[in-house]
Amino acid sequence: MTGFSCEIVAVGTELLLGQIVDTNSSWIGAHLAEVGIDSHYQTKVGDNPERIKAVLRQALDRSDVVIVCGGLGPTQDDLTRDMIAEVMGVELVLRDDLVARIQARFGNRPMPENNLRQAMVPEGAEVLSVMPGTAPGLRAPVGDKVIYAVPGVPWEMEQMIGEAVLPDIKERAGITAIIKSRTLRTWGESESGLAMRLAEEIERLDHDRRATLAFLASGAEGLKVRVTAKADSEAEVDALLDEHAGIVRSILGDDIIFSDDDESMEQVVLDLCRRQGLTLATAESLTGGLIGARLTAIAGASDVFRGAIVSYAAEVKRDLLGVPQGPVVSEGAVTAMALGVCRVLGADVSLAVTGVAGPDPQEGVPVGTVWMATCVDGVVEASTAKWAFDRERVRQYTTISVLNALRRRLVAR
Amino acid sequence: MTGFSCEIVAVGTELLLGQIVDTNSSWIGAHLAEVGIDSHYQTKVGDNPERIKAVLRQALDRSDVVIVCGGLGPTQDDLTRDMIAEVMGVELVLRDDLVARIQARFGNRPMPENNLRQAMVPEGAEVLSVMPGTAPGLRAPVGDKVIYAVPGVPWEMEQMIGEAVLPDIKERAGITAIIKSRTLRTWGESESGLAMRLAEEIERLDHDRRATLAFLASGAEGLKVRVTAKADSEAEVDALLDEHAGIVRSILGDDIIFSDDDESMEQVVLDLCRRQGLTLATAESLTGGLIGARLTAIAGASDVFRGAIVSYAAEVKRDLLGVPQGPVVSEGAVTAMALGVCRVLGADVSLAVTGVAGPDPQEGVPVGTVWMATCVDGVVEASTAKWAFDRERVRQYTTISVLNALRRRLVAR
Repeated sequence: MTGFSCEIVAVGTELLLGQIVDTNSSWIGAHLAEVGIDSHYQTKVGDNPERIKAVLRQALDRSDVVIVCGGLGPTQDDLTRDMIAEVMGVELVLRDDLVARIQARFGNRPMPENNLRQAMVPEGAEVLSVMPGTAPGLRAPVGDKVIYAVPGVPWEMEQMIGEAVLPDIKERAGITAIIKSRTLRTWGESESGLAMRLAEEIERLDHDRRATLAFLASGAEGLKVRVTAKADSEAEVDALLDEHAGIVRSILGDDIIFSDDDESMEQVVLDLCRRQGLTLATAESLTGGLIGARLTAIAGASDVFRGAIVSYAAEVKRDLLGVPQGPVVSEGAVTAMALGVCRVLGADVSLAVTGVAGPDPQEGVPVGTVWMATCVDGVVEASTAKWAFDRERVRQYTTISVLNALRRRLVAR
Repeated sequence: MTGFSCEIVAVGTELLLGQIVDTNSSWIGAHLAEVGIDSHYQTKVGDNPERIKAVLRQALDRSDVVIVCGGLGPTQDDLTRDMIAEVMGVELVLRDDLVARIQARFGNRPMPENNLRQAMVPEGAEVLSVMPGTAPGLRAPVGDKVIYAVPGVPWEMEQMIGEAVLPDIKERAGITAIIKSRTLRTWGESESGLAMRLAEEIERLDHDRRATLAFLASGAEGLKVRVTAKADSEAEVDALLDEHAGIVRSILGDDIIFSDDDESMEQVVLDLCRRQGLTLATAESLTGGLIGARLTAIAGASDVFRGAIVSYAAEVKRDLLGVPQGPVVSEGAVTAMALGVCRVLGADVSLAVTGVAGPDPQEGVPVGTVWMATCVDGVVEASTAKWAFDRERVRQYTTISVLNALRRRLVAR
């Protein structure tokens, strides 16, 4: 970090009322941090002229640059343009080139009169070159500081910040180094366990200072290990990332790392099946279709995924999948499910889960007890877990765990 | 609104870095608004002593009370207690009663030394009576203002705010009126369509002022209509809610309103099946198990839900469900799926969906084309839709739409 700081102001009464959660300033904060710029304060303020002005003035006072998000729309409530002009001590002027650009966005439809407001720019401010929607972004100098104004619509904001604002801020901050990250995803080891295994590497990096490791807990998406490297050229940064991601992989191994490139577990499993020419099916009891739903959330799943039998009722397990009489949360039941679904749906490999999601025990089996199985080349492997979670997390953790079990078998195949 | 205002400060460097999105201040803002208290500013600040103090002092200066969230944990980074003491100009004192309460949370496990920090309280501050975790909440008077400190863990924060902080703030603000809301959920009409149909009622309420209507878009959870009423007693408020929720229901009707009490569509469908003694199954293609997953997310689904056949591959549709040769995104296919799954899984009623989720067209059928069917008492009704959405929203909107189709048939049964 350089001592240079950027303050973020989110404008909109709907943010204060909690009707919309302000994810924009989190997104911007994360992207500032990635290029090495501090953000000490992030403020939400309503659509009130005096309060917006006060917040902007204070932000200019205590930070080097300010990004203000929202309030650039066409309605009377959209005050950001006007308040920046007041803080600059200038008038708003109608920019004919902007009228034409905004008009062009409407194509053949008539442009509402209101949208002319969006072509008003504080005198002395520049319009950002990137304009994904109808709201122009602004770069407004105030003394030796700068206010950047971007719309509150996330995809418009993200494109403007990424392509126009961040490069400009980096230049003002005198940051010439290139910073990039790579995210490895893991499953099956706790955060403190990862930290212990990687302690030596972390210490080495603390001395080296050209790369850092960070852990990001992501619930049932796995624990992420992010390698961030900083150097003067793309080639150097890529080499550093390759080197340190390689060290992390060699320490943790394939059993724990399921992706080198921030891919989801289901994406990785589908890719492994596809590469090995295998079709996949699932037999689901306590997950109720969740594993199938996650697999099919990915475009192209149909190459691999044949389908699922959600055998929620015990009779469906017995009649359709051939589960023998006896307890349905058991090794015998889950094994029969994994074999049965390969047979019934004509799949090469399968996974199966049965368990007690709660809130009540079932057949005397306590809540959180789960049996999972995978079937590869006709051979079933089963395992059990006892989660101390609520219903939804029991289902989510079971989903990623059984997918990981299948992944390990496919990697070793 | 009363002119009384409450400022919210969220403490934590991880919030500024965007590693965690600050949903706490949105939640608090919404709950303040519900009881009629303004929140003009909401600020995120990092784990830095000088900046936390500066933000607290400013908040006290421009607002009547301050809620500070986070920084009450046991580590050295948790500075909120210390900074409140400095702002109050007092020392921290170790409270023996708190040591005992925190110790009790650990049961037989040893309490880490660190947790003693959580028993330190600024002299003159009170500990909130509600303490769901190991972090005590604080009520710290500063002159004629008050700072409330609550933990950043959402469920701990929500319980403390709801049970201890909000009642206290209401009293300070001199709010004696009772304000309550009731949420009706709708599906099948746009926000502007709802507003048009309810225009007369909204105008009447604008004059009456004892109740208000608000629309909350909630994506594939439906559009919510929230009735809020204000009166001097619980009985009056409940009567107002009954009256105006009743008017909204009589205007919009059962076809559009699926819940009077903020229940999800899947909850409503399960309840209707249960009351009518019917078992339910789903046959899913493009949703891949999502409908089953949503149904089984609800505890008690096993009374009703027999299971699902996720027939992602065309052969599974034909072999297992009896879908005839020909296009699989068609009325014929979805009808066969709905009938087939009732037969194969032994269910009384069913729903079925097939469609093109994208990104590419399939068998010449464009992306977003969906066929949905319901089977009740052996009779299938099918309908089609053409969604202009991305893959995930096509799946989500299809899920709630087909559940709503089944709901309407069960209501009319």
